Amino acid sequence: MNLTQNTKRVRKPRRTVRRAFLLLFLGTFATLVQAQTLTSPDKNLTMQFELTGKGEPTYQLTYKKKPVIKQSKLGIATHDVPAFLEGFKVVNTQQNTLDETWKPFWGEESSIRNHYNELLVTLEQQEPKGRQIQLRFRLFNDGLGFRYEFPQQEQLNYFVIKEEHTEFNLTGDHKIFWIRGDYNTNEYAYTTSRISEIPNLIEKATHDVHAQFPIDTLSVQTPSMLKTADGLYINIHEAALVNYPAMHLNVDPKTFRFSSHLTPDAVGNKGYMQTETQTPWRTIVVSDKAADILASRLILNLNEPTKYEDVSWIRPMKYIGVWWEYFVSGKSTWAYSTETNVKLTDDFTKFTPNGRHGANNENVRRHIDFAAKHGFDAVLVEGWNIGWEDWFGNWKEEVFDFVTPYPDFDVKALNKYAHSKGVQLMMHHETSASATNYERRLDTAFQFMNKYGYDAVKTGYVGKIIPRGEQHDGQWMVNHYIHVANTAAKYKIMINSHEAVRPTGLHRTYPNWIAQESARGTEFEAMGGLAPDHTTILPFTRLMGGPMDYTPGIFQTDMSIYGGNQRVNTTLVKQLAYYVTMYSPLQMAADLPENYERFPDAFQFIKDVALDWDKTHILEAEPGDYITIARKAKGQNEWFVGGITDENARTATVDFSFLPKGKDYIATIYADAKDASWNKNPQKYTIRKVRVNAKSTLKQHLAPGGGVAVSIKEGDRSELRGLKKLK
Amino acid sequence: MNLTQNTKRVRKPRRTVRRAFLLLFLGTFATLVQAQTLTSPDKNLTMQFELTGKGEPTYQLTYKKKPVIKQSKLGIATHDVPAFLEGFKVVNTQQNTLDETWKPFWGEESSIRNHYNELLVTLEQQEPKGRQIQLRFRLFNDGLGFRYEFPQQEQLNYFVIKEEHTEFNLTGDHKIFWIRGDYNTNEYAYTTSRISEIPNLIEKATHDVHAQFPIDTLSVQTPSMLKTADGLYINIHEAALVNYPAMHLNVDPKTFRFSSHLTPDAVGNKGYMQTETQTPWRTIVVSDKAADILASRLILNLNEPTKYEDVSWIRPMKYIGVWWEYFVSGKSTWAYSTETNVKLTDDFTKFTPNGRHGANNENVRRHIDFAAKHGFDAVLVEGWNIGWEDWFGNWKEEVFDFVTPYPDFDVKALNKYAHSKGVQLMMHHETSASATNYERRLDTAFQFMNKYGYDAVKTGYVGKIIPRGEQHDGQWMVNHYIHVANTAAKYKIMINSHEAVRPTGLHRTYPNWIAQESARGTEFEAMGGLAPDHTTILPFTRLMGGPMDYTPGIFQTDMSIYGGNQRVNTTLVKQLAYYVTMYSPLQMAADLPENYERFPDAFQFIKDVALDWDKTHILEAEPGDYITIARKAKGQNEWFVGGITDENARTATVDFSFLPKGKDYIATIYADAKDASWNKNPQKYTIRKVRVNAKSTLKQHLAPGGGVAVSIKEGDRSELRGLKKLK
Repeated sequence: MNLTQNTKRVRKPRRTVRRAFLLLFLGTFATLVQAQTLTSPDKNLTMQFELTGKGEPTYQLTYKKKPVIKQSKLGIATHDVPAFLEGFKVVNTQQNTLDETWKPFWGEESSIRNHYNELLVTLEQQEPKGRQIQLRFRLFNDGLGFRYEFPQQEQLNYFVIKEEHTEFNLTGDHKIFWIRGDYNTNEYAYTTSRISEIPNLIEKATHDVHAQFPIDTLSVQTPSMLKTADGLYINIHEAALVNYPAMHLNVDPKTFRFSSHLTPDAVGNKGYMQTETQTPWRTIVVSDKAADILASRLILNLNEPTKYEDVSWIRPMKYIGVWWEYFVSGKSTWAYSTETNVKLTDDFTKFTPNGRHGANNENVRRHIDFAAKHGFDAVLVEGWNIGWEDWFGNWKEEVFDFVTPYPDFDVKALNKYAHSKGVQLMMHHETSASATNYERRLDTAFQFMNKYGYDAVKTGYVGKIIPRGEQHDGQWMVNHYIHVANTAAKYKIMINSHEAVRPTGLHRTYPNWIAQESARGTEFEAMGGLAPDHTTILPFTRLMGGPMDYTPGIFQTDMSIYGGNQRVNTTLVKQLAYYVTMYSPLQMAADLPENYERFPDAFQFIKDVALDWDKTHILEAEPGDYITIARKAKGQNEWFVGGITDENARTATVDFSFLPKGKDYIATIYADAKDASWNKNPQKYTIRKVRVNAKSTLKQHLAPGGGVAVSIKEGDRSELRGLKKLK
Repeated sequence: MNLTQNTKRVRKPRRTVRRAFLLLFLGTFATLVQAQTLTSPDKNLTMQFELTGKGEPTYQLTYKKKPVIKQSKLGIATHDVPAFLEGFKVVNTQQNTLDETWKPFWGEESSIRNHYNELLVTLEQQEPKGRQIQLRFRLFNDGLGFRYEFPQQEQLNYFVIKEEHTEFNLTGDHKIFWIRGDYNTNEYAYTTSRISEIPNLIEKATHDVHAQFPIDTLSVQTPSMLKTADGLYINIHEAALVNYPAMHLNVDPKTFRFSSHLTPDAVGNKGYMQTETQTPWRTIVVSDKAADILASRLILNLNEPTKYEDVSWIRPMKYIGVWWEYFVSGKSTWAYSTETNVKLTDDFTKFTPNGRHGANNENVRRHIDFAAKHGFDAVLVEGWNIGWEDWFGNWKEEVFDFVTPYPDFDVKALNKYAHSKGVQLMMHHETSASATNYERRLDTAFQFMNKYGYDAVKTGYVGKIIPRGEQHDGQWMVNHYIHVANTAAKYKIMINSHEAVRPTGLHRTYPNWIAQESARGTEFEAMGGLAPDHTTILPFTRLMGGPMDYTPGIFQTDMSIYGGNQRVNTTLVKQLAYYVTMYSPLQMAADLPENYERFPDAFQFIKDVALDWDKTHILEAEPGDYITIARKAKGQNEWFVGGITDENARTATVDFSFLPKGKDYIATIYADAKDASWNKNPQKYTIRKVRVNAKSTLKQHLAPGGGVAVSIKEGDRSELRGLKKLK
């Protein structure tokens, strides 16, 4: 890990436009073409736009001549103006092409090509006379994005959305990797089934999650991952979710029609719109290769470039935390005292300590020492501030103040100590979903962080939202998360939000919104366990929108040593592989320090693995089964490979052709032992060093619930000479 | 007017406890008394507490042995814990007495006596076992206050209120001065009727008011003013409304039972409670003299003393404004441009000015000059900031930013100019009821005020509340207004809130919350007119809770000179009288400067009248008919008298016995001309100077819709000698 160098490499993106816009004005013809066809640059995808006889807009999509989306209607129902549903005429169409390359500040690639053909259709209604909206379609080689646009006009200034009626008419009873539609949480376990099986499985799939609000229509969440009988992979999601509610998908299990279902607000409305404005992009990523889905940058490309002028302070981070011990039965608590009813005005020094408070000076110092010793950037400390005694379940507005430490947490001394050792403390702002309280205190909270030298904060939204009646996925909260990210940027603070709406590529626009949770992460291993195939699905679903703070790295997978009978359902090596397969510029080593000290050789991989990348190679992938990814560290001749499997053992194939030709490298291979599996001998592994080059191929056994991790670097001649060549 | 001196006199209150608490612990007796009687210090009032056979708490109240409130139940229905309605046993009672005198920073008196006998009843339930609540009754000579208290206990930490069921069982079909119950507005015109007539009149009484939400049960608002057939005056309201929704009163027109109806939140809940906590006080002011109702300080006494450490910056203010011209047909507008759809990110310099923007540099300078010339403290400027083009009716969250002036308002230069002339500009923060937006920007807005030297702000809440689904009178907004006042205090800023929940004496606790509107004020004279009896009712209703920024002083009552056919329904002299009868430490001279310049002799009264008082004498009063009040200016030997009548002419009697004995004073009497009335010759008046002393009595003719104003000051011998003595 070499964060200083990584940080230096962060720079403003330069946009290399290879070809200028090619504008085809078709609107001037006397007879307007009411149907329009758009093809992707590589011609594999074709999108057809058409009006029905009633003037309803529709689209359909084919991939290599196979239908992906059959003719599907587009439209929006409204509350206080006539609907945008029918009676449309095409009054203008434009086709454009863009081919540019841009550079994200951090990411899976240092350079991203944004190449699409675009169709902009202007539609006009008679009721009210002359009112226009526009539909913008962008067809990339990897899929389709489209959105509704509402120009400012005399006939349209403000309107309230009752529902968006965007259809996705699928062609058959596809396999689908799904979680139930819910306005408040994405922290469900995935179910793999046919679309037609969803009705029978939906109740079983409705796990208990804090403050959940399962949608009462049959629905699933996005990103929604599908696979057709003839081998097409289809991913439906959205991009650039700004000032609009998150979209869920109603499911018709007989016709296989999916349709948009927006998250309502406290009074049942779905969106408050002021022209000029637009919806988020609706995205359909398609390929006949599963790996292409993971390689797609379509969602990022559909987001806006950042407006931040200075991004030099934004940097990937590797961190440990006073965190996992809270999940380990009986070890420690966020709360400081024995009280069960506290107020922010209370004097906590007068309360009786419960004797198990995790965020105490001594424990935090121990973590700082460990972080410094092993080269971590930061130590997250949860439970440092007053209010944890009764923070959950009371719909309490004044729940945290974000500036008052518990009596045994010396904020000044601990930060000073950390900084003296080259480590940052990472702030924690659990809001208990009391967003109004957080907004009221936001500037003060960030000023407090600046004062003590914190530069990143993990935010949390566990519970029922305040403003009461609002939902985690509603327009108000969508705006809230962005408000927090934007305000944080003013204070040069990075945000890692937990329990927020799932990401839609907004980290391109707000690059300090460095990671999110928004799915079932490692913490659930301590609350019943995650299925071994969970992390083979997440990259195809949750991670399509952006990096996840999955908090991997649990070495002590058998949690019975702490009491209880919990188990992390992976091998130790699979936990290493996650640092490559679960992309995030923010990576935690989530286990207790003492567990890492027992396995220093395996821990070396976590210390070595990069956070920021020049290039990503999806070597193998099948949702629900396996993923193998190789990535080149940004600006360095180092590569890291991670491979994982589900509950089945398999042999992973790592084709090293991503390496520069004609040169040998040292590969360190962390592998499951032969008799290892997620539930037996999960801590048995082997580590071997071999010589590899671009012609090498590794065939590696992965245990049931296991994985493989490889680090590859340059070596001098003598080093290389001592190593066996991989065949 | 001599504000500098007034300001100097502001000081911290000293509490003179004449008698210490007298505690009678009755709870130690083996057999507990389940009924308790409490009498007022003067023995006129008797309150009886009793449990019903089902263990329901009840109270009843008599005045001079006449029943005021028949036996009435007390109780609270809850959502998530067993109700506080029945099954109670008395487990302890305490009787206490307090007699203290305290000094408000500003007010109708410089010294207020707080004298009551108190009964604290501790009630216990079996379900859940041993859970306790307390009822605290305070019986003053002028009425009763009581509240529910919820001690912290194992059995009770958090609960949600479904409804409060406090009854006020009235003894007959009383006369009532009422406005309809409404969650969002108090800006209705009053109806005077019998209780039994309310059902027939309620629809007629539901005037169109912005964002109104009339309650669907038969209900009226508080303060509710009643008069019994045998001459008792009864006023029902509440004191210290903090962290709780405002109370309306359900009306049973047959049994004359009034009962509490709390304002719900966005999901229909009424209050989120965390022990230790309490409800606001429910207040019943009673007398056989109407004047005693106006003289009551019961509501103030039930509020908490302030916790502000420094109050030296809080001062009464007299102000003019760029305001009335917005109501005068066609003259000017809040908005700057011709746009109908604007965003805070727009560049307003690029918009076309509409040519009628009121808050332009030249007009503001003219107002500053006028204020300086005539000794006003401040000039309110509405419409100074961007966003007015489409601020209303769109439920728009990002409606104002409170820091960006329109292009023709030079905030720096205008403040500098004002300060150079000894005048302040008064800030205006219309929120359009987007409270979340205001809270988000509050610190920035107050920092902006500090930067430019504003020390007072008029806030506005016109429209439907954001958080959407919340109401102006709900718990969330109640907390919002207090949050704004509290935050303003940190910046040494005074608040004058319009369209907020009606006051409940909180200006004792938050003395920088210097005035409120929260009723139908002068602006309605320009929107259909106010009934001539309106201002004879307001002091008995709205003003019971606190000062009102009524914005009196309209000299040009016939508004047809501006076009249209509007008329202010008073004589000019009645407008002068308001500066005494409508108590506020913040008084506006609301008319256009040019109108004052046409009547410099009458204008002199507005310039002279004090804002802060040592002593108030209610000389005559009958709700709906007339009010005559004399007040002594704080720390000065000056007195001011205001008398008003309804649509009927009358002869007011001013008994000067409030003057110190044995000394003559100069009284300047501003009186309606003989042929004046609210709709004929309203601008005809006489001004005469006479000599008065403590033995004098003035019998003064008031025109229909008219009034009288008197200023009284010391004179030297020669001055006095030249004056006729009043007989």
